[in-house]
Amino acid sequence: MSTIFSKIVSGEIPSYKVAENDKYLAFLDINPLNEGHTLVIPKNPTDYIFDMEDEEYRGLWSFAKKVSHAVGKAIPCKRVGVAVIGLEVAHAHIHLVPINNVSDIDFSRPKLKFSEEEFSSTLEKIKSRL
Amino acid sequence: MSTIFSKIVSGEIPSYKVAENDKYLAFLDINPLNEGHTLVIPKNPTDYIFDMEDEEYRGLWSFAKKVSHAVGKAIPCKRVGVAVIGLEVAHAHIHLVPINNVSDIDFSRPKLKFSEEEFSSTLEKIKSRL
Repeated sequence: MSTIFSKIVSGEIPSYKVAENDKYLAFLDINPLNEGHTLVIPKNPTDYIFDMEDEEYRGLWSFAKKVSHAVGKAIPCKRVGVAVIGLEVAHAHIHLVPINNVSDIDFSRPKLKFSEEEFSSTLEKIKSRL
Repeated sequence: MSTIFSKIVSGEIPSYKVAENDKYLAFLDINPLNEGHTLVIPKNPTDYIFDMEDEEYRGLWSFAKKVSHAVGKAIPCKRVGVAVIGLEVAHAHIHLVPINNVSDIDFSRPKLKFSEEEFSSTLEKIKSRL
């Protein structure tokens, strides 16, 4: 099934790409809970993360670890929190969210709004730490 | 540093153990967001999950995947959601939470209360699916 994330992978829909290799992609969530909120996805579109093939699944988490370090260095925070919910877009995705307290990763909160310039600035900060 | 989770690993503090091997442990969260809410930890106490050594980190996620399948079969839910927050106990831990909607994994919600009999029943349901 083609999801919005497949279209981001193909470039049909533009995104703020943080990191990419042949199997995985990390890009800024455009409805972020916090500055630096990043989504990490496999390019191969599996719906449910726990249905992913073992080696691809482990590779996804390794890729997320690398990205988390850059996010954590770029955005002042106590931790980079992790969430996988997966009820909205049928393409497995890991949320990496810079957090200072537990409410920073509460998905029922209103999302933040940033301008294109602000997203670009955040992107450059993170990419410079990779 | 000795945390409550180190004491659970050693058996000094009792827990409802879902699965265990020489490196990892999964046990029921006694302040659950939903029935079947399980914590997955490395026995070696690293505070921040993204500071874990690569192979141990990848093994932790593989162990969590196995546990998630049993939780998802035992507890009726759309998904087993994932969260790593890590602001409270200084010992890396993955939350696996059976969810039907996004608010089921909102950590600011009041936690559920279950009796010892209820926890034991949940535990047996999950263990039988491993």
